[in-house]
Amino acid sequence: MSYEKLHAHFRRLGQLDEVSAIVQWDQAVNMPESAGPARAEAMAGFLRVRHELLVDPRVGEWLSVAAEQADLGDFEVANLLQMRRLYRRATAVPADLVEASAQADNESEQAWRRYRAENDFASFAPHLEQVLSLKRQVAEALSEALGLSVYDALMDEFEPGIRARDIDRTFAPLEAFLPAFTDEVLERQAGEPVTTPRGPFTIEQQRDLGLAMMRAVGFDLSRGRLDVSHHPFCGGTGSDVRITTRYDERDFTSALMGVLHESGHGKYEQGLPSLWRHQPVGLARGMAMHESQSLLLEMQVCRGREFLRFAAPLIERAFPQNAKQQPDALSFDNLERLYTRVRRSYIRVDADEVTYPAHILLRYDLERQLIDGRMSVRQLPDAWDSGMRRLLQLSTSGNDRDGCMQDVHWPSGAFGYFPLYTLGAMVAAQLFASVLREHPTVTDELERGSFETLDAWLRENVWRWGSRYATDELLERATGERLNPEHFITHLRQRYLPSS
Amino acid sequence: MSYEKLHAHFRRLGQLDEVSAIVQWDQAVNMPESAGPARAEAMAGFLRVRHELLVDPRVGEWLSVAAEQADLGDFEVANLLQMRRLYRRATAVPADLVEASAQADNESEQAWRRYRAENDFASFAPHLEQVLSLKRQVAEALSEALGLSVYDALMDEFEPGIRARDIDRTFAPLEAFLPAFTDEVLERQAGEPVTTPRGPFTIEQQRDLGLAMMRAVGFDLSRGRLDVSHHPFCGGTGSDVRITTRYDERDFTSALMGVLHESGHGKYEQGLPSLWRHQPVGLARGMAMHESQSLLLEMQVCRGREFLRFAAPLIERAFPQNAKQQPDALSFDNLERLYTRVRRSYIRVDADEVTYPAHILLRYDLERQLIDGRMSVRQLPDAWDSGMRRLLQLSTSGNDRDGCMQDVHWPSGAFGYFPLYTLGAMVAAQLFASVLREHPTVTDELERGSFETLDAWLRENVWRWGSRYATDELLERATGERLNPEHFITHLRQRYLPSS
Repeated sequence: MSYEKLHAHFRRLGQLDEVSAIVQWDQAVNMPESAGPARAEAMAGFLRVRHELLVDPRVGEWLSVAAEQADLGDFEVANLLQMRRLYRRATAVPADLVEASAQADNESEQAWRRYRAENDFASFAPHLEQVLSLKRQVAEALSEALGLSVYDALMDEFEPGIRARDIDRTFAPLEAFLPAFTDEVLERQAGEPVTTPRGPFTIEQQRDLGLAMMRAVGFDLSRGRLDVSHHPFCGGTGSDVRITTRYDERDFTSALMGVLHESGHGKYEQGLPSLWRHQPVGLARGMAMHESQSLLLEMQVCRGREFLRFAAPLIERAFPQNAKQQPDALSFDNLERLYTRVRRSYIRVDADEVTYPAHILLRYDLERQLIDGRMSVRQLPDAWDSGMRRLLQLSTSGNDRDGCMQDVHWPSGAFGYFPLYTLGAMVAAQLFASVLREHPTVTDELERGSFETLDAWLRENVWRWGSRYATDELLERATGERLNPEHFITHLRQRYLPSS
Repeated sequence: MSYEKLHAHFRRLGQLDEVSAIVQWDQAVNMPESAGPARAEAMAGFLRVRHELLVDPRVGEWLSVAAEQADLGDFEVANLLQMRRLYRRATAVPADLVEASAQADNESEQAWRRYRAENDFASFAPHLEQVLSLKRQVAEALSEALGLSVYDALMDEFEPGIRARDIDRTFAPLEAFLPAFTDEVLERQAGEPVTTPRGPFTIEQQRDLGLAMMRAVGFDLSRGRLDVSHHPFCGGTGSDVRITTRYDERDFTSALMGVLHESGHGKYEQGLPSLWRHQPVGLARGMAMHESQSLLLEMQVCRGREFLRFAAPLIERAFPQNAKQQPDALSFDNLERLYTRVRRSYIRVDADEVTYPAHILLRYDLERQLIDGRMSVRQLPDAWDSGMRRLLQLSTSGNDRDGCMQDVHWPSGAFGYFPLYTLGAMVAAQLFASVLREHPTVTDELERGSFETLDAWLRENVWRWGSRYATDELLERATGERLNPEHFITHLRQRYLPSS
């Protein structure tokens, strides 16, 4: 009966996590700024209570007995594995440290909003130092308990089982391939003119278009919302998925693709096995797989020529005035060029898929140094600038707002997350290549705006499994091989240098 | 040191309550309808965890020791009293019943939203029966533990110390006074024509006016928000007060006064002693006092002639088109008549202050019967109709939407709350009479839109005390006497039949 006790206990934790997800969404979307400190304190207290529930000594006792229960099915066994993992991680860190770290993360994230807007790294640095100092203590405690390096111990939270050596191995072919490839693509695109659509594109128009596109790609709006936040994200719960974006009245293209990206995350959450809701095995399978679902939708599908043929008329109708004044700008041909335009630029979230990995390589390198103690927070602006010069031939000197302060991750304590974005891009390419191999007609369907076959495949091979399999295993079952960076490289070649 | 342990423990509970307040606000304002069942379950789980924290046996031990600590100040002693009260109430009810009741309340509230819109009492009745059945079990457990009648045991949650016999005693003069008085007022007003302002008044205009008025009456918008919900309320936390309203494009007057009403609640929350945040003694002093603060602002101040002289030009400027087309309608004279118009009507929240007590008498009578088991849910529509005929000369037969289904209270399990509204009206009249006696110039200030003296008096006499004193004691310290219904009756006479 120990398994049943664990099931009930983790159900309770899952309920708390749903509450927490809504409050965190609220903080990003609705909270008045001055309520920040009180909210940080309340959330830290709440997470402390959750933590104490998780590390209840009875959980350890139940876990040691439940493994011997003979009546467990595959999902139950996988569930136990996830429970054990969560319990081991939680018991490794003292509760006071959990609470202090959560509160520092929350306060720092709020400070970041203000100081990023003011391009004031000096004022922000003490907050980040506090976050990093506590995070390193957390990482050391985890490292000791789990027998992992400090960086691996952090990464393992977001993507169970992943290690820095896996990252290094899969990133190496990309690092070798990208610099010359990027030059070639840029040279080729220099000869292909593109028209920048002229605004204004009102927020209402953009929002309506975003909602229409969400519906078109199969996001269930009766179980979710679209809102505005400082930094776009997908939050909420499986039955109430909340995605956010930010609008720029001069340019609709970025918010639109952002909405589609987050819709990919959202569809994954909506497709998870509802039978296992609240249980660890019912959760999404790590952040690389999560990112693969957003990138599969955004990069593989929505920036692809087939989907854009479907989308172009909808976009034109969404902005009738602009389309009348500037018909070329919203044509399929121009939209396709816009949405595959490559440009070395400052902002990760706005980067194209060719230069995106460079943004990740930079962050991956720097955050390992920060966590290992080889670099201090004060050195970050210079290190960022020199990394950007090397990787993207751009300088961020004096522009920390668009440099080392651009992302919410470090300010909110998420170290060990960035490499999973590029891992996700590789997984997405590998999954989509498999779909097309098995179902070549998917391209025709996408041209008609139909996601029937694609979503059925994803549901069958990814979504419905939750955390039943390890990432590598899930990928191998779905595609016949473990993670192979060549699929991503092939995708880039085919899309950006099709004749070569 | 027991007191210090209690302090830390209740701080944690207070943090959870802040989280809970945000999630409950979210449910009313943002949640997609189909997410309802999952949310109900998550919140029930969360409240169960909170409950278990509150009934931790150590709390009982600390409480029994702490009372003997010699080093406690007045607020600490009052805090202990509140803690003991909360602990006694919580330990009286089995945790399974707490969770089942919370989940039934939540599910029923969601069912109510749907079935009220469809005027479908038959489909809603099973939900209400479930809520009532569990609530009666809760009430019986409380009754036994606290030595109170079942109805008093429920009312005591919202207004500590109040008993049905107090309600009966204070309501009696009102019941005697109102019927003939209402007839007289209606007769008099029949000879005073009023112009109904013609819409449309756009939601954006109404929202801007609402926000401007909130600022004018001293609601701190850097620590709060204004949103839209099905049923207007004031929620959130002291540092993040969330008030809601609902808009009708044909009529701005109701939403505007609703915003001012909720602003009164909000100002009380914003004025509570921040030093005692998270502690029971730092909470608002019961729901009668809370309602007195909203009614003092809405009824005593904002519908009064002095404030309306200040507000009329703002209202005119908020709707320039309408003011141009129909200048009389938005004039001070007409607004004053509109906002003091008496009419026997169906909807409590839209009722004027003369007929409002009749709505309360009806609900007070019916909910006592429901809780005592003298009436079943199925009998409610008929009983409502016959009560409305007797008290307000209106029939709700076949119109349960505007009859017994109009309020969120019973569907969400709040029995024993309604009488506090009219108690609040009496407290408001008594408090405001004291203010005017001590500071006759307040009327001049209100005519200029200044709340300086009024708010200083309320802060000094009400807000800053939190739950330091019992309601009666607080009222006596502020006004020199215990609750006296004559102040409310005098107010009604002076406003509605000034020459008589």
